This record gives sequence, structure tokens and C-alpha cells, in this order.
Amino acid sequence: MSDERIWTAAVLVIGDEILSGRTQDKNVAQIATWLDVQGIRLREVRIVPDVEEEIVAALVALRARYDYLFTTGGIGPTHDDITVDAVAKALGVDVVIHPTARAILERYYESRGGLTEARLRMARVPEGAELIPNRMSGAPGIRIGNLFVMAGVPHITAGMLDALTGELEGGAPLVAHTIGAWAAESEVADLLRQGEKDHPGVAIGSYPFFREGRVGANFVVRSTDGACVAACVAALRASIEAAGYAVTDGGI
Amino acid sequence: MSDERIWTAAVLVIGDEILSGRTQDKNVAQIATWLDVQGIRLREVRIVPDVEEEIVAALVALRARYDYLFTTGGIGPTHDDITVDAVAKALGVDVVIHPTARAILERYYESRGGLTEARLRMARVPEGAELIPNRMSGAPGIRIGNLFVMAGVPHITAGMLDALTGELEGGAPLVAHTIGAWAAESEVADLLRQGEKDHPGVAIGSYPFFREGRVGANFVVRSTDGACVAACVAALRASIEAAGYAVTDGGI
Repeated sequence: MSDERIWTAAVLVIGDEILSGRTQDKNVAQIATWLDVQGIRLREVRIVPDVEEEIVAALVALRARYDYLFTTGGIGPTHDDITVDAVAKALGVDVVIHPTARAILERYYESRGGLTEARLRMARVPEGAELIPNRMSGAPGIRIGNLFVMAGVPHITAGMLDALTGELEGGAPLVAHTIGAWAAESEVADLLRQGEKDHPGVAIGSYPFFREGRVGANFVVRSTDGACVAACVAALRASIEAAGYAVTDGGI
Repeated sequence: MSDERIWTAAVLVIGDEILSGRTQDKNVAQIATWLDVQGIRLREVRIVPDVEEEIVAALVALRARYDYLFTTGGIGPTHDDITVDAVAKALGVDVVIHPTARAILERYYESRGGLTEARLRMARVPEGAELIPNRMSGAPGIRIGNLFVMAGVPHITAGMLDALTGELEGGAPLVAHTIGAWAAESEVADLLRQGEKDHPGVAIGSYPFFREGRVGANFVVRSTDGACVAACVAALRASIEAAGYAVTDGGI
């Protein structure tokens, strides 16, 4: 338990392909996991279509509310890639060609047919932006103020997150410990409630599943204080065992 | 192309486990696909933590803006299941025990240790709600006004969606046709832009990938007018082939 500042983030997914059900989003989970290690809490995600006013409205709302805002998608070379324009509009700045981005793309496409007008779109940035290196393909990500503009393709975003590792100020990372039992969560609900009540500052998540013809649940105990997590896990474990269930450390 | 009413929906995912990166959301994609078949467009998704005021604020904003609002998560028997309370607060109604839900749970738990106080939590609904049958487990979903409260566990939500199939008023479903080519999307960007310009009412999405050491992209042509989609696909296909790329029908 501590009174230190908590750093927060939101993710804005820009993509008709997610909203149509065509593509399963993978960026939220990877950004969430990465933020956790940086000591930053992901507090909200929004997914909006490739419509400029929708993107702008979400950018304005989310960047004001959280310390950091990450966007994914819409930064490629095609007509439906409008994220940079939306970011510029949300910030009230112009869109310019970033000279370093242009040089990166020129080098990257030298042996790949040259830098066409469509490809040059990927060097467009809101005025005042810095680049986020992308070692997977030519096109860089963009950083401006508390806004981080990442790719839609998950392995490219992974490369950009790598480049940002340790660059963002964060707080104490959350410590989490999972235990599991072949018990219906309804049978241990009171024990969970008691565990949370007895250990202030700790949050217990309960995640039921149905596997091999049986019901079970995993319980994730979280806090920024590792000793607090350990004490709560020990107490919860003892109470679930006393109720007649074997407990598996690390979850089932 | 038609001037008919477009029906819209949003999904609100309630879940610390998604925001922590622990669980990969699967409900958005399945609800999106299901909505598509009902002739309803998914226009926005928000993911919020298990914090009542956050859930209430998102409920109020989204149900006013879209025809339908689906929530997932937070309807189990444990202390972190607060969706029903948040919905009741957002609508300004009380939480009551639904007699049919209670009867369903009594029957379901008859051979499973009986209906405990924790399990009875799953019969709590906002006053005035109807139930959405759930053939997978005892606990039903909830329907009240334009709000549909579904489970967090994807296969349970799938069962609830089945029960709702054909129940919601929708418009013309979107027709989509995908073609693919082993071309960098930057090489065909102009052709896509032209294809969209020449076929009003059609939207073309471009989805690049990197596979087997090569870059390629799939192009999804969408409209409510099937003839329009077919015409646009034929024109796009011809122009991509003219640029020297083989085109794969149905995508790569």
C-alpha cells in the first residue's frame, strides 16, 4: 500500500475491421501487458470506426483524462489510413512530412520499388511529433505530447513498444498472484469477499471456467504491495482448502 | 445503396481481466459478427474496469447514442460482479430478484448443492427487465429497454446471442467480398482510392500482412447493395491484375 501517484493510460483502437468482426484485436492485450511492466494502469479502451470525427472526439476525451493515450491502426499508405489527420485535428496542428521519417522510408523502399506518393503518406506526422522507431517495416510510429500512435499490425506495434520500453514515467507495478480451484465460483464467493475485506488495498478477481466437463475458477490477487498480496493469497488459500477444495498455485 | 434507416449498436466490455492483459477478449468479435447478420452495425466498443461509476458513465453515454447496447462481464455470483447494480443506477431503477430467474437457478442448483445466497445474486435484475435464456449454465442474461446484459464467458454469451437471433429489428445486412494479392498495400493504394471513388456507397478496407517472407494484403469491399459490391470487386480486380499482381478471390 502506498499513496504514490498512479499513472494511467487508455488505448484507442481505430479500425472498421475490428468492429466488423473480421479481425480479432490483439493489440489491447499486448499493450496492457506492456503497460503493467512499466507501472502504468490501462484504465479504458475504445474501439471506433475509420471515421475522422469519431476518432477526433475519442482522442480529445481520452488524452485529457489519462496520463498516456495509445492509438493503434490507420497509419498505413492507403485511403482508409486517417489517424494522423485525426490526431493533428484533435491537437489543432498541421500535418507535415517528417524529414527523418521520409529518409527512413527512402532507404527502406530503395530496394523495393522506390518511394511512391502513397508510401510517402507514411512520413506524414502532426507538426511537432517525434518518431517511434519500428524495426519491422519502414514506417515509424509517432509520439506527440502524451499521445502514442502505433500500427494496427500487432507485430509492428510490438516492435514500437520495445522501442518505448523504459521511456515512460510510471509508478509501482502491480503485483499479481493467481491461485485456482475446481470449485464453482458461487461456492467460494463469500471467501473471496472476506479475503478482500481483510486485506485493504488488495483486489481479488474471480475468473470461472468450464473445462474437462467440470467447473472451476482462478482467483487473481492484485496490489502494488507484494507482502499484502502474499498475505491475502495465504489466507484465501487456507479458507478455500478448509471448504474442501484443493488449491493449485499459479492457477489451473 | 439505399436511404433506409441504419441500425447501430455498441458493446461495453466490463472487465479488469481484459484491461490487465490477463484475458484476451473474444466477445467483441463474436457479437460483431452476430450483429452483422442481424443487419445492425457495431459502431463503438468501450472496455472499462470493474468500477461502478465508470460503468454507469459508459452505459449512460452509449445507450443514448446507439440503437442497442450490449454489455459483457460482471454478472456472476462474486463480489466483483457489479454490472446489474451499475445498470440499475444508470436507468434509475431498483434492483429486484426476478422470480423466473430465481426458479431457473433453483432448478439448476437442485443437484449442485442448492441455491446459496451468492448464487441467488445471479437472479438480481434491474426492475422491469426481461431474461435472456442461457442454455449453457443456470444464470440468464438480462434485457431492459435497448440494453442487453451478457456474460463474460464467451461460450455463454454465444448461447445468449443464439436466443436473441431474429429478435432485434435491423436493416439491410452489409454485403462483403474479399480479394487478396501478394502486393504491398502501398503499391495498390491509388487503385483502392479510385475503386472507392468510382463506386459511391462502397467502402474498401485494406488489410496488409507479412507471411511466408512476403508482404501481401486483403481488400474487403463492403456495401448494403450486393450489385454495387460485385461491380467494385470486378473493377478493382481488373486494375490490380493490370498492375501485374495475381488476385485471389476470397482473400489470401
